[in-house]
Amino acid sequence: MILINGKLKNTLEITDRGLHYGDGLFETIEVIQGQPVFLAQHLARLKTGCQRLKIPYPDETLLLDEITRVSKTSKQQGVIKLMLTRGSGGRGYRQPEVLNPSRIIALYPFPDYPESFKTQGIQTCFCSTRLGLNPLLAGIKHNNRLEQVLARSEWQDEFQEGLMLNLNEHVIEGTMSNLFVIKEQIVYTPEITVSGIKGVMRQLILNIARQNQLPVCEILFTRDFVLQADELFVSNSIIGIWPIKSLANKSYPVGLWTQKLMLYLAEYKARDIPNDIT
Amino acid sequence: MILINGKLKNTLEITDRGLHYGDGLFETIEVIQGQPVFLAQHLARLKTGCQRLKIPYPDETLLLDEITRVSKTSKQQGVIKLMLTRGSGGRGYRQPEVLNPSRIIALYPFPDYPESFKTQGIQTCFCSTRLGLNPLLAGIKHNNRLEQVLARSEWQDEFQEGLMLNLNEHVIEGTMSNLFVIKEQIVYTPEITVSGIKGVMRQLILNIARQNQLPVCEILFTRDFVLQADELFVSNSIIGIWPIKSLANKSYPVGLWTQKLMLYLAEYKARDIPNDIT
Repeated sequence: MILINGKLKNTLEITDRGLHYGDGLFETIEVIQGQPVFLAQHLARLKTGCQRLKIPYPDETLLLDEITRVSKTSKQQGVIKLMLTRGSGGRGYRQPEVLNPSRIIALYPFPDYPESFKTQGIQTCFCSTRLGLNPLLAGIKHNNRLEQVLARSEWQDEFQEGLMLNLNEHVIEGTMSNLFVIKEQIVYTPEITVSGIKGVMRQLILNIARQNQLPVCEILFTRDFVLQADELFVSNSIIGIWPIKSLANKSYPVGLWTQKLMLYLAEYKARDIPNDIT
Repeated sequence: MILINGKLKNTLEITDRGLHYGDGLFETIEVIQGQPVFLAQHLARLKTGCQRLKIPYPDETLLLDEITRVSKTSKQQGVIKLMLTRGSGGRGYRQPEVLNPSRIIALYPFPDYPESFKTQGIQTCFCSTRLGLNPLLAGIKHNNRLEQVLARSEWQDEFQEGLMLNLNEHVIEGTMSNLFVIKEQIVYTPEITVSGIKGVMRQLILNIARQNQLPVCEILFTRDFVLQADELFVSNSIIGIWPIKSLANKSYPVGLWTQKLMLYLAEYKARDIPNDIT
């Protein structure tokens, strides 16, 4: 099911600036038994993105209503992709005086990841595709995603995720996830200031770690720093936490701190979903 | 008139990766009396972009046939926007095993720029939006264009173009054009290696200058270097050459070298268009 500006549709005007310039934002939201998970956090990030790109944030009542309509059609587990583009109009890069952003809300089936990715961890590599440097766009989940597309084309099924460095040779994130490094009882994650996306799940994990007195640190670090980790994991809103069991031929345990964070996250998530369906 | 994969249409499947990730390329081509101008050069750049993004370049006979069908409907002057996206399919950033790129060919009216922009020059500013650094994507005309959209939102009608610096404080290009600086009898244009688009018109001007024994130099330079120019102009496939008459409160003449290059370009363009219509 796909709603475009509240109407059932599966095509978009060719004039939409989302298509021409990647001029938009998106959120990928888990749906459990008809309920979007961590919706408030997703909408908050969307709002931040709107401010950065100067796209008017939609009427929230309307948006919530549309998200609810689409979510309700999902049984068990699903994924909502919420896209907001600057809409049509304008002259080349110049936007029209009055913006009519396009709200696109689509329901996808939940990906059929094996349970072992969560319990035993995943195999990963370092991508050779480098993230560019762009403080203006760093952090937000905009639709200019060629770097991720190119990075993901470097392997097929031999890895479940690839880690990306930026032009400064700092490790920033996975192609579709954020990265966490546990080292000497500190939870590290790359600082997202010049490259990368600030994932909703990344922020939740940072908050949960702090609430549980685990020291956290957002800094920029190198490939060697990552390789010398005690534990490694990646996160996003759909996978939650996936421990990394191998990276560039080195092996890592599904360690105690990763397990702890997975447990805290499960508890936190259970509180986000209304009682009657958990 | 819009052709999508050879069919008359004005909507695109919502699943198209062009919309989700800006996963595509485009060309903006002048049409004079039903004939696309510098088509060979545009298709050559599209091909380079395809190689860089690993999008299969379309069957050229088919593509030429579609471009001809659309161009022929244009009387006098028009603009063709040719877009090639990776098409639909795949799982997230991962592309499908078999790609079916989307060919989108749309005819637009020629913009109604006053003749004075060509004869007397335009007013320009420096944008505060910075281009990021990304050697992987520099040069090609891909659909990840948020930087240009943000830069163009900095002014309304008080300028005709804005010049963009990159993160390294090098002046790279205009929001929709390339930049040329004439200084002490040398034609300078920014090197496009870490930021910016290699315009078809930029390359033509470089070639034409060389053919006419004007020394050319592609290097990276600063805002001060630009401000101390003898003559300045911008170029793209639709405007050709526009002299800059003012930049950041400094005035510049429509100088001899700019006039020479405009003349050479007009002669070269006349040869590109079949005799019967010039």
